[in-house]
Amino acid sequence: MMDKSLINTQVVFVERPSGALESKHFELRCQNIPEMSDNDVLVRNIYSSVEPYLRVLMTQDMANTKRFELNTVLPARVVGEVIRSRNSQFSEGEFVFGLLRWEEYSLVVGGKGLRKIDPGLAPLSAYTGVLGPSGLTAYVGMLEIGQPTAGEAVYVSAAAGAVGQLAGQLAKLKGARVVGSAGSDEKVGFLKSELGFDDAFNYKKTSDLTATLRGLFPNGIDLSFENVGGENLDAVLASIGIQARIVLCGTVSQYDSAIPTRLNNLTSLILKQGRILGFHVRFYEHRLPDVILQMSEWLRTGKIKYREHITQGIENGPAALIGILRGENIGKQILQIGEDRFAQSVK
Amino acid sequence: MMDKSLINTQVVFVERPSGALESKHFELRCQNIPEMSDNDVLVRNIYSSVEPYLRVLMTQDMANTKRFELNTVLPARVVGEVIRSRNSQFSEGEFVFGLLRWEEYSLVVGGKGLRKIDPGLAPLSAYTGVLGPSGLTAYVGMLEIGQPTAGEAVYVSAAAGAVGQLAGQLAKLKGARVVGSAGSDEKVGFLKSELGFDDAFNYKKTSDLTATLRGLFPNGIDLSFENVGGENLDAVLASIGIQARIVLCGTVSQYDSAIPTRLNNLTSLILKQGRILGFHVRFYEHRLPDVILQMSEWLRTGKIKYREHITQGIENGPAALIGILRGENIGKQILQIGEDRFAQSVK
Repeated sequence: MMDKSLINTQVVFVERPSGALESKHFELRCQNIPEMSDNDVLVRNIYSSVEPYLRVLMTQDMANTKRFELNTVLPARVVGEVIRSRNSQFSEGEFVFGLLRWEEYSLVVGGKGLRKIDPGLAPLSAYTGVLGPSGLTAYVGMLEIGQPTAGEAVYVSAAAGAVGQLAGQLAKLKGARVVGSAGSDEKVGFLKSELGFDDAFNYKKTSDLTATLRGLFPNGIDLSFENVGGENLDAVLASIGIQARIVLCGTVSQYDSAIPTRLNNLTSLILKQGRILGFHVRFYEHRLPDVILQMSEWLRTGKIKYREHITQGIENGPAALIGILRGENIGKQILQIGEDRFAQSVK
Repeated sequence: MMDKSLINTQVVFVERPSGALESKHFELRCQNIPEMSDNDVLVRNIYSSVEPYLRVLMTQDMANTKRFELNTVLPARVVGEVIRSRNSQFSEGEFVFGLLRWEEYSLVVGGKGLRKIDPGLAPLSAYTGVLGPSGLTAYVGMLEIGQPTAGEAVYVSAAAGAVGQLAGQLAKLKGARVVGSAGSDEKVGFLKSELGFDDAFNYKKTSDLTATLRGLFPNGIDLSFENVGGENLDAVLASIGIQARIVLCGTVSQYDSAIPTRLNNLTSLILKQGRILGFHVRFYEHRLPDVILQMSEWLRTGKIKYREHITQGIENGPAALIGILRGENIGKQILQIGEDRFAQSVK
């Protein structure tokens, strides 16, 4: 029997943004949990990943996903605990990861898309980031698409973000020289002192980004891991070396702006035989189990470090998403929706 | 002994353009031929290739080339005849191709960079186009970088230009479905009737280029051979299919404009996992002998056709270059500088 006493708080998308995302584009809604049918699983959501691409889907279709309908609960990559199961594959008390919704409890029809996770391998929250979409994005984007080699000069923008912090370290593991940019001195300190970047700079204190990049990369950028787009991408184009690769992972500066930045230096791709390699983690979901094994090994041996920025409470989900678009987070932005009883013992 | 009676007319670059190229940016100059030293070769220039990238080098450095200095004779890819030689490798009466200058006679120090050509294999003019840089660009760009496969949907912009006319046919040879765009109904007719493109349209008669492309490519563009840039590239980005490749060969719409076009749809590269592959023929000059053999075979068997647009007289060089930036040519724009005594017999 369903526990009718469970009240489910949800984040609903109610207005399509045309420029900067604001809290008015969301509403909180409470409802009872729907009835479960055979094979359904009920998950108590604990941590949700907060990702910039949600902003893209608010206005544009993606490769295999239509843009969000208004008055729907936003989708979210979530770590949670099975609290009811009518599915023989899942038992109460097990921990799972899946593309669920921004709500306290998700009813997963047929248990579809749920993947069991091991709470002993890493903190639960890690499965939304370093052992989840951020780790997969950094791993595939940097190592398989970017393919840095020893001695190459690598630039990572939004380097203190969820993906950037990992992408830069992965390039370091391959012997590249890695320079990162971020939007505060605190982030720059984090990159240089904690993550071992060769250099880093605060782009908000740079009056001429192209001059800065050319100074830091006197022989040109060999590989740029692009998270920002806009002016950053334009300065990268003006600073690439021969046969440079620009891995286009995100253009977060553009998601929230009504008018895209003009690119003055696209012709540089011709003159330098450069390449822009767009990619999206959705095309690589099948690789996640392998990447979890590799990344957790690197975490255990201290070769990869990461930071999380955890915002508490489902009601603060919209603020967390707005914050990430403004670059307020250091490390992976996570929304904690429910209690994590491992949180003290693991850390 | 040097024949002092030879007067050499040259095209000199005298003013750096900031927007559209005009005749005032050039001057004609006459001078005597300099003295020859040991190993020098004197070439009577017959045909010169007229290429949009000259406009780029008037304002920007390229990969391995500094932008042009003012008050210098413009460089040009030229077919000519050896009329004096103090080099044992070259004899009077032989025909050569090389990166020389826009002038009637080029003194080639040490014979450096000259390549002998066979006037029996194809008309001399072909070595500036289909058997020269245009053919090499189309071959490498389409077949080796773009790699069209049977059944793929391929879009070629500036399709009636020197490179476009060949690139489209090469994709057809691989079994792709090829659609071209051009700037006049006459060019569109040329693409469909003479070159066998599957479809073609006049972009000047299109009010919404994205809608046109989406209509012509209902499943998305698999491969775009981009010669135009700007609005065309933006519409392509909005119309690509999953894992599309955009071979960035040129951005001719941008060379002559002071303010680049805004790209609204770059994020599409992420959402569709698309790639922009910049390339320049200068990185592939060593491939030219192989490509000449292959292309001349295809010409002989009628698998590849081409058209030339020949402007007469060194004094009309600037007008020819201005014309190509405005899209006035159909096929390869060539400047005829001197007499071609094979012209009647070969055609």
